[in-house]
Amino acid sequence: MSYQPPVKDLIFCIEHLSHWENVSTLAVYADHDLTDIGAALEGFAQFCAEQIAPLSQIGDTLGARYDNGRVTMPEADAQAYAQFVEMGWQSMTHPVEYGGFGLPRVVGAAAVEVLNAADMSFGLCPLLTDGAIEALLLTGSDEQKATYLEPLVAGRWSGTMNLTEPQAGSDLGRVSTKATRREDGTYGVSGTKIFITYGAHDLTENIIHLVLARTPEAPVGPKGLSLFIVPQKLVEPDGTLGAENAVNCVSIEHKLGVRASPTAVLEYDDATGFLIGEENRGLEYMFIMMNAARFSVGVQGIAISERAYQRALAYARERVQSRPVNGQARDAVAIIEHPDVRRMLMRMRCLTEGGRAMAAATAGLLDIAHHRDDPAAAALAEFMVPLVKGFCSERAVEVASLGVQIHGGVGFIEETGAAQHYRDARILPIYEGTTAIQANDLLGRKVMRDGGETARRFAARIAETEAELANGFAEAQAIGTSLAKARGSFESALDWLLETSHKDIDAAFAGSVPFLMLAGTLAAGWKLAKGALAAQTALDAGQDARFMTRKIATALFFAEHILPDCAAEHARILHGARSLLDADFPD
Amino acid sequence: MSYQPPVKDLIFCIEHLSHWENVSTLAVYADHDLTDIGAALEGFAQFCAEQIAPLSQIGDTLGARYDNGRVTMPEADAQAYAQFVEMGWQSMTHPVEYGGFGLPRVVGAAAVEVLNAADMSFGLCPLLTDGAIEALLLTGSDEQKATYLEPLVAGRWSGTMNLTEPQAGSDLGRVSTKATRREDGTYGVSGTKIFITYGAHDLTENIIHLVLARTPEAPVGPKGLSLFIVPQKLVEPDGTLGAENAVNCVSIEHKLGVRASPTAVLEYDDATGFLIGEENRGLEYMFIMMNAARFSVGVQGIAISERAYQRALAYARERVQSRPVNGQARDAVAIIEHPDVRRMLMRMRCLTEGGRAMAAATAGLLDIAHHRDDPAAAALAEFMVPLVKGFCSERAVEVASLGVQIHGGVGFIEETGAAQHYRDARILPIYEGTTAIQANDLLGRKVMRDGGETARRFAARIAETEAELANGFAEAQAIGTSLAKARGSFESALDWLLETSHKDIDAAFAGSVPFLMLAGTLAAGWKLAKGALAAQTALDAGQDARFMTRKIATALFFAEHILPDCAAEHARILHGARSLLDADFPD
Repeated sequence: MSYQPPVKDLIFCIEHLSHWENVSTLAVYADHDLTDIGAALEGFAQFCAEQIAPLSQIGDTLGARYDNGRVTMPEADAQAYAQFVEMGWQSMTHPVEYGGFGLPRVVGAAAVEVLNAADMSFGLCPLLTDGAIEALLLTGSDEQKATYLEPLVAGRWSGTMNLTEPQAGSDLGRVSTKATRREDGTYGVSGTKIFITYGAHDLTENIIHLVLARTPEAPVGPKGLSLFIVPQKLVEPDGTLGAENAVNCVSIEHKLGVRASPTAVLEYDDATGFLIGEENRGLEYMFIMMNAARFSVGVQGIAISERAYQRALAYARERVQSRPVNGQARDAVAIIEHPDVRRMLMRMRCLTEGGRAMAAATAGLLDIAHHRDDPAAAALAEFMVPLVKGFCSERAVEVASLGVQIHGGVGFIEETGAAQHYRDARILPIYEGTTAIQANDLLGRKVMRDGGETARRFAARIAETEAELANGFAEAQAIGTSLAKARGSFESALDWLLETSHKDIDAAFAGSVPFLMLAGTLAAGWKLAKGALAAQTALDAGQDARFMTRKIATALFFAEHILPDCAAEHARILHGARSLLDADFPD
Repeated sequence: MSYQPPVKDLIFCIEHLSHWENVSTLAVYADHDLTDIGAALEGFAQFCAEQIAPLSQIGDTLGARYDNGRVTMPEADAQAYAQFVEMGWQSMTHPVEYGGFGLPRVVGAAAVEVLNAADMSFGLCPLLTDGAIEALLLTGSDEQKATYLEPLVAGRWSGTMNLTEPQAGSDLGRVSTKATRREDGTYGVSGTKIFITYGAHDLTENIIHLVLARTPEAPVGPKGLSLFIVPQKLVEPDGTLGAENAVNCVSIEHKLGVRASPTAVLEYDDATGFLIGEENRGLEYMFIMMNAARFSVGVQGIAISERAYQRALAYARERVQSRPVNGQARDAVAIIEHPDVRRMLMRMRCLTEGGRAMAAATAGLLDIAHHRDDPAAAALAEFMVPLVKGFCSERAVEVASLGVQIHGGVGFIEETGAAQHYRDARILPIYEGTTAIQANDLLGRKVMRDGGETARRFAARIAETEAELANGFAEAQAIGTSLAKARGSFESALDWLLETSHKDIDAAFAGSVPFLMLAGTLAAGWKLAKGALAAQTALDAGQDARFMTRKIATALFFAEHILPDCAAEHARILHGARSLLDADFPD
């Protein structure tokens, strides 16, 4: 089944939900207008649909292959990657001075969605490279930037994040890879890193590993970690590639999904590394990269959801089975006519578009916070990132599962493709910080630390939207009523969590994931509601009636079918802590 | 990881939740008491844990193999199956006159759980054989019973259900396989059947296919279907095996899960078939078999959930990562100490035990309805079957997914085993009737047809339990409060659905799956609540304090964390119909 990038909705989200009126006035983006951006996205979407989307199922079947330290990618992937580089797509959002196009993150988010919907295994390579570029831009020395950025931005080299070790997953303080300073100022890096996405492959000339390691005298725990550049091939002063570094891929994992994306075990054996910034500040730098990556993983969730939805929709239109329950036809009809199939399709669509709406809003806040001194925007962006990551990744698993369900028995057969989405999606709530890690980040750093100030500002903005909805058309009023209830659940839960955090921190954190899901659901419903208001304005102006009517319907369905979950999450937070903290598990 | 069959909880459910006081007084079961049954279950559990459970991962890796019409099972499966037959486990619940042990279905349900938790791929073969036995017992002629039952009950032969064809899945009226009466009274059966579980394999001497087909003059649609016995090898008058029948396996499917269970495409080319009962009543007979199979699929959901839970629990105890959020330890702790891991584990356990509790109650009702003229028990059993199938299968997908999540990155690696449960579980809400088919059955046949009488009786019984809870200990009162709210949601949804069904049948069916999930959640919470009352009585009598305390904690967690979903389902039913029926989908 072919993939049709949802460019119209992506542009709608940029125009109406990404704070475009503020993003577009940032000096750095002054050269770009919506027409521009639309053309760039259209071009990229066409490339992804034609060149990348057909790879997904092939790559899943063939997988990346490991042989004696070398990882070989499927031939079709290698060809497509070469084209990707040739057309300059890696450079979309990166600074012009390093060869980038300099487009804002709101566009980057849309591009990440389209690429990962086409093929998530493929999309992971550029995604990691983006993270390495971001880290070097913010923390690299001028020399490091001069050496590494241009080929990374061009996509000729790729980047990796080397955090995890067998004993150090969520708990990075336990990292034990060693880095010893040599006389020439470089470091000898030794240790084993696992779960390294695209840690070894043959798509690029070089791979730039960013590695968390510990210098000999460093303090124990997370505050003793430093960050190093360890290029797979050393780079000569003139920029040409020199000797192979002492980084060996000893195996790749046999995974549930994203099988064409090699997940490597890397052994560093006194490999030459270059310190980034200062010693012992590695975790801080890594978090810069991780925040961007977390947001992108949320977007991958939207991507998988969209692809699964399109596949299910096409099948539901084509598959004829059973007469309608209302008896209005004597013959069997396409299953899209059956109420429960419609329910599942709408659920898939609304969760997908809800995620897209909140991601666009968050991307805009990140653009603003990055280029302007706006602490309120920065705080709201930081608040939103774990929601995008947590909500969109968890919901992607549900959406992919619904996609299988709509296919019935055929969905369980691998050749159909629906099962692949179900397998691929499952990594999303895990990597770049599990949902629980996102929820701890949300509750600990984004809510408790400022005494709930940002969270209350978030709620206050939703209340403003409710006021607009209340004065609006019939659907807007219905949406507003649901939204107000959900916001009430959020505020009540927030009060309870803040109060409880002072006297029983365990009880507060027992509700962290329910709170994340409550806030994420509310955020998505809110942004869809704003979208519905914008759609009505467009409708009144006679624009694109069918699309705009559908945007209103999506917001209404979300309000009626998804927002009610907020009350259930609220109940779990307020009444559910003791029963889980006190739980006794059988031996 | 080894599997420990939850025999104590299975016995607890039989003793306290299966209406044992009524089941045990049925004449047919007069020979069995709880001690007896406990010993039988213990023996079977030991066999499953030791001989079957180790096969699951091996079978998943090797899969069933197809070569030129023959299907070869993994060698370990063949050996274990031979032992299974030798020890007589297939015959547990079947009538003594055909060589069975004659144990009640409440025990059979427990056995199905244990076997499928050990290895669902393996368990599917006996499960299908059970279905064939049941159909023959109820609808076969004396001669057919004499010919086929004894070897099926012994497990020397296996059974299959041949319903699906490429154009006929949920919609069996579209079956087009032909059966033409020959002069000798047999039928020539021709057509293609797909998705035939264990349709071809080398575990047994013979395979007895039960096949839905259409005679030449039969009416179109579901009322023109007849049911035939088509043995893979024809049976001579003396019971020995004769010539191979014209049934060919042309391929097996490459599936997401249950990979050691061969799913065959069978071609019938004028194969010799024997009519069961009367012509054109095939669907009716098939439903007898299907009802039993549907119940068993629900039990498979409990089985996968239990296995996933045990695996996650063991990992959570062993994996050390991160300091506690309450700062009470300076070192990293086992992740079971972290609140959100506890939340996920408790969710897994409570959904599993909730399913088990409602399945035990339903099995008891089925036993009673089968052996006594008790229309109320029969109606309630019929009402409960789609709840067991729908709720336990949907929740199994969630529980298996949580199992992956608890493992973090390691969960995504196939060798860990958690991912297999996630893959295996996904078929459960699909086969033997999708969740939507269960929901239509519930709403159409079990609720609307009697004007809601059975559904109201179900609610009234829950209200009785609430009254007991209200007079009970502190946890009982909290459980009762949640249960009353959930029952309120159920009754309100029921009223709305009954009323709406008269004026807008589409709107009623738009809420069918939410109603199924509401009712299923309520039923599980109710039975756990009854379990909590029984546990307190046992505690007061000084019995098994730790286990009984845990049963109360399970019911409380379910009440606080799962029952709140009922209100959300209620909202979806009452307010969500129009937005999905009116939905417009993009071209």
